[in-house]
Amino acid sequence: MFRLFPKDETFFELFEQAAANAHEGANLLVDFLDKYEDIENKARKIKNVEHAGDELTHHTIERLNKTFITPIDREDIHDLICRMDDVLDLIDTAVHRMILYKIAKPTDDARALATVLAKSTDILVKAVKLLRNLKDPDPILRACKEVHTQENEGDRILHHALATLFDSGQNPIEIIKWKDIYESLESSADRCEDVANVLEGIVLKNA
Amino acid sequence: MFRLFPKDETFFELFEQAAANAHEGANLLVDFLDKYEDIENKARKIKNVEHAGDELTHHTIERLNKTFITPIDREDIHDLICRMDDVLDLIDTAVHRMILYKIAKPTDDARALATVLAKSTDILVKAVKLLRNLKDPDPILRACKEVHTQENEGDRILHHALATLFDSGQNPIEIIKWKDIYESLESSADRCEDVANVLEGIVLKNA
Amino acid sequence: MFRLFPKDETFFELFEQAAANAHEGANLLVDFLDKYEDIENKARKIKNVEHAGDELTHHTIERLNKTFITPIDREDIHDLICRMDDVLDLIDTAVHRMILYKIAKPTDDARALATVLAKSTDILVKAVKLLRNLKDPDPILRACKEVHTQENEGDRILHHALATLFDSGQNPIEIIKWKDIYESLESSADRCEDVANVLEGIVLKNA
Repeated sequence: MFRLFPKDETFFELFEQAAANAHEGANLLVDFLDKYEDIENKARKIKNVEHAGDELTHHTIERLNKTFITPIDREDIHDLICRMDDVLDLIDTAVHRMILYKIAKPTDDARALATVLAKSTDILVKAVKLLRNLKDPDPILRACKEVHTQENEGDRILHHALATLFDSGQNPIEIIKWKDIYESLESSADRCEDVANVLEGIVLKNA
Repeated sequence: MFRLFPKDETFFELFEQAAANAHEGANLLVDFLDKYEDIENKARKIKNVEHAGDELTHHTIERLNKTFITPIDREDIHDLICRMDDVLDLIDTAVHRMILYKIAKPTDDARALATVLAKSTDILVKAVKLLRNLKDPDPILRACKEVHTQENEGDRILHHALATLFDSGQNPIEIIKWKDIYESLESSADRCEDVANVLEGIVLKNA
Repeated sequence: MFRLFPKDETFFELFEQAAANAHEGANLLVDFLDKYEDIENKARKIKNVEHAGDELTHHTIERLNKTFITPIDREDIHDLICRMDDVLDLIDTAVHRMILYKIAKPTDDARALATVLAKSTDILVKAVKLLRNLKDPDPILRACKEVHTQENEGDRILHHALATLFDSGQNPIEIIKWKDIYESLESSADRCEDVANVLEGIVLKNA
């Protein structure tokens, strides 16, 4: 069968790569916090993953610019790839701040937030794969709801982290540093929710 | 008269419920700050309102998924309900932080910010009702402009609050705590402006 | 040649004025930081530019409301003008905070962030002019990529600024103040990237 304007399947591949890349970043963050050693080197690896995300974003935009017919709306493709990039940017920011602030060792709450990020990005990997079959929206919407649940969990952990931090009797400068790190991690979980919101929007628009 | 695809009026009801819910949250916040007693219990009521907002959001998304013809664009319905949810999330965050930070008593500036939120959400309640009559966009746009004015007022109060805070000679940890609370309250007013932006977008698209 | 619905060219003029206005704000910020004298007066000039931005935004929304056919999608016109306004809001916030916090003299890092803003808004001025010729998307996309590069530069400077700040041995209150100022400046550069994202979206949608 001849199709004059074949749907460009590679956008789905780019989404899957971007989601897998964000998940890799989250996993590297978990390892960074679990085994807090050789941290400059580990931070460099996370920076490389973040650069790979930038490349995927630019590549997707260039492809959009050269593609006549897209499988889903052009602006949604753009939104989705940009929002996935934001997740990695904030993981990279959190890691950079820990080094910049000369943090001696991570906290349990930081590790718990990293676990939320690993779970959220894992759900996004699966959700993004389901975009190839927009005719069946329910599994994608369920995945998005799971991301919302993880974001609530992130909020809960941030709350606990701040309570612990302010009860610790540490000096104000340590409190400023850790508050910043926790908020970067929790913002990254918020950006996962933004990705879920874009996915929901795409699904509902095409329902 | 038979209509093959009747417009699903219930989306308007869901918007009105979500706006009323956000307004209730803002009113509970005003009471929380005005009569700062039994605060754990009052915070729990605000959390319940926030949960009700989450439920309304999920319910709207499910309905969108099952509805063939929508009265306004599907992605705008999704945006509007999600942005209204954000307003409540930040009210809940501000209240939670006050308890977490063991704040002994609220400030006039916190109360003034809560009043801005009560006004902004009251305007949103009215604006959202007007969505049923998109043929008459002017009153909605006027309401949105009022929300922008309230947001400027919120900025002004935050500015005053920070000036007072830094002039107070309090210790740095108190300053960190209050800066966080003020910024959560002011962010909630910013999210009201985001709702107004979505409303403007809907009105202008359908003009 | 008679055209029943002539494209309303004035939207392009409004975009160009808004971008030029944001660029003027960034240039005034550079001057404010370079010659840190008569600062109340300079801050008032920046506030006036910010007000002019608000006026342009409201004027654009009113025009959208009265215009039947628009040269690009109505919601994109709305997004673009609102995002440009955000850039100026944050420049104004940063300047206001410096006065509020009674900052005695600016830092090299603050000046470097202002330079990033001057460059980013200069690129936006050029990019927005290119919107008149959507048939030739490549120069606009190249400009957007340059804005992304500037935003990375802003991130790098913020990182350096925070490292210097925490190494300075200053008291916690000075650290809180400067962290807030730096973050406002860097957020303004982020908002330039948001404008670039809207421009990319417009270009790709119309490609």
